[in-house]
Parts: sequence; structure tokens; C-alpha cells
Amino acid sequence: MSAEQTKARILDAAFREFAEHGLAGARVDRIAKIAECNKNLIYVYFQNKEALFATVLDTHMTSVFASFPFTADDLPAVARHVFDQARTDPGVFRLLAWATLENSAAAMPPGRGQEYGRVLALVREQQESGTIRNDAPPELILMSVLTLATAWAPVFPFGETATPGTGLSPDAARDWIADMVGRIAGQDPGRRIARPGGT
Amino acid sequence: MSAEQTKARILDAAFREFAEHGLAGARVDRIAKIAECNKNLIYVYFQNKEALFATVLDTHMTSVFASFPFTADDLPAVARHVFDQARTDPGVFRLLAWATLENSAAAMPPGRGQEYGRVLALVREQQESGTIRNDAPPELILMSVLTLATAWAPVFPFGETATPGTGLSPDAARDWIADMVGRIAGQDPGRRIARPGGT
Repeated sequence: MSAEQTKARILDAAFREFAEHGLAGARVDRIAKIAECNKNLIYVYFQNKEALFATVLDTHMTSVFASFPFTADDLPAVARHVFDQARTDPGVFRLLAWATLENSAAAMPPGRGQEYGRVLALVREQQESGTIRNDAPPELILMSVLTLATAWAPVFPFGETATPGTGLSPDAARDWIADMVGRIAGQDPGRRIARPGGT
Repeated sequence: MSAEQTKARILDAAFREFAEHGLAGARVDRIAKIAECNKNLIYVYFQNKEALFATVLDTHMTSVFASFPFTADDLPAVARHVFDQARTDPGVFRLLAWATLENSAAAMPPGRGQEYGRVLALVREQQESGTIRNDAPPELILMSVLTLATAWAPVFPFGETATPGTGLSPDAARDWIADMVGRIAGQDPGRRIARPGGT
């Protein structure tokens, strides 16, 4: 097995271990076992557990952001996309929640910071062109999209977790969340019609 | 020291330890040390670490909910209250985030379930009386209030954590979040004026 293949196996194993247990709870022993490699190789390639966590989070966050349909001219559609992503690939959102809660420096790796900056600029552009209401700070618009889009996923405490047995289907929840984001952004959900007054 | 006093010290110490480290990361040794009691007393009074966590979370969640101005006829005001609570008393929101992420049975203790049921009924009542838009499921209305109100707090990943250095004051963030909740619920923020059409 080449060094690159071994690294890829370690990153994959680390992703699963960190998503399940967080940074403090993760065990390098278990990562080595899942990756079927010598534990020392992990230190050789990735220095220590913290650095490995940061690498894993950065890689996955960057790829999640890269997949967003983030032209920001249709925020309800972005919310729908993120909603599906949080359901089908919960691992990266779990990583992010752990990093935030563990107050780890890894919570804001360079890739994530860059992607946030890029996306904020897009939101600002759409505000200037009148597609999104222009009176609210772009940081809060983006926050509301990401927060609401992921809120129904099991990783966060105020959605289905808090009200189990509600009988609401994922499709219905996705529609309502897109509607809410549209109201916040001053956009009709899925119809790309700007309401410049923002009300 | 009476048994009641000792229990209170243990609960207080456990709250701090669990808020900091979560269920898996918390150490009963440290709780005993902070509470200045014999470790065995913790097991005598609270069975085990899991049961102690559940007790602590339930107690604090119930008291947080009890303090909400939850008549639900002014959801932007509720959002303002929760926003302040998440800033001044982050511990209980950290407990909740840990419990959710650790997928612990303690995440939905009886007290929390009861409070949620009570508050959902209030939201439903206001929907029926036309104060809040009546087309959206009450679970999603409540989710949006709690999610947005806490999203700017350091415990969650998409607020100030994600966009540090934005220069937005807590007062400004609180106002914008109340505005967002008002748009979602079909209520003007802080003015208690219903807009029955919801737009």
C-alpha cells in the first residue's frame, strides 16, 4: 500500500471516529485499528490527534461548502440542499458540532474561514442587487439559512430530537424550512422572485 | 452538612463538569473533588454518571423553560429572552448540545418532554386564535424560535463562531433575530400585531 493510500485510509477512519466521539473522546488506537495501520504512522503523517482532527474537519467542510448551490440568489434552494446534506451526510455536521462544543481551535480551520468569506461576499452581492433584503447583516442571513436548514437533523437539539413522533415527513419539514428562509431573506421559496421591500 | 446540602453541592459540581466536558468526558472523581465530598456518596445518591447527567439536565431544562415568557402570543419577545439566556447561562445549552451529540437517552428527560408539550400547546392555541400564522406545524415554529434565538451563542456553529470579528453587537444581533422570528411567525417583532396573512 502506498503512503497516499495509507493516508487516505487514516483520514477515512479518523472521520468516522471523530464524528462518533468528538476530539476528546476519539482514540488514536481505534483509528489505527479501523484504518488497519500502525498507530505510529498516524503520528508520522499527521503529528497528533488535534492536528488530525483539524485536517479531517477542514477537508470535509471545504467539500461540503464547495457542493452548495451557493449563488445566494435563491436561499430557499440553498436551505433545501443543506437540509438534505445534513440528513444524508451527518458526519461533517457532527464534527462541526463537536469542534464548537469542545471549543477547539480546529472549529475554524483555514478552509472553513475561506469558504465562509466567499459565501458571505455572495450574500452581500445579492443584497446589493436587490435579490435579498438588504437591511440585515449578511452574517445573520447566512446564519439563519445554515441554522434552520440543519435544525431538523438529529445532531441539533431543537428539531425532531425535541419533538419526536410528530409525524412530519422530511419532505414536509424541508418545504417549511425553505418557506421560513424565504420569509427571512425576503424571497419566495423556490420561485426566485425578489421582493425588494423585504417584507 | 446535611444530606440535602451534600446533594445540592454534587448537583452544582456535576452541572459545571458536564457542561464543560459532556457525559463521556466528565469524571466522577472531578465532580467529587469540586463538591468536596466522598466519591461513593455520588453513587449512593445518584446511582451512576448517566443518571446524574439526566438529573442535572432535567433540572436545568425545566427551570429554563419555566422562566420563558411563553404565552407564545409574542414570539419575537420569546426569542429575545432565550437569546439573553443563552448568553448569560450557556451551561444548560451546552448540556443540551452534548446530550444530543452523545445521543444520550438523557437528551429527552421527562421534564423536558413535558415542557415541550406544554409550550407546543401554547403555540397551537395562538395559531388557532390567529396571533401566529396557522399554516405551519407548531413544532417547526417552536424549532425556529429556539434555533434562531440560540444560534449566535458560542455553543452553536453557525453564528458568531463562524464569522468572528463581524463587529455586530449582541443588541443588534438580538434585534435582527427577533425580526427574523417575527417574519417566520407572521408577527411584527415586539409590537404584538398579528399579520394573519402571514406575509
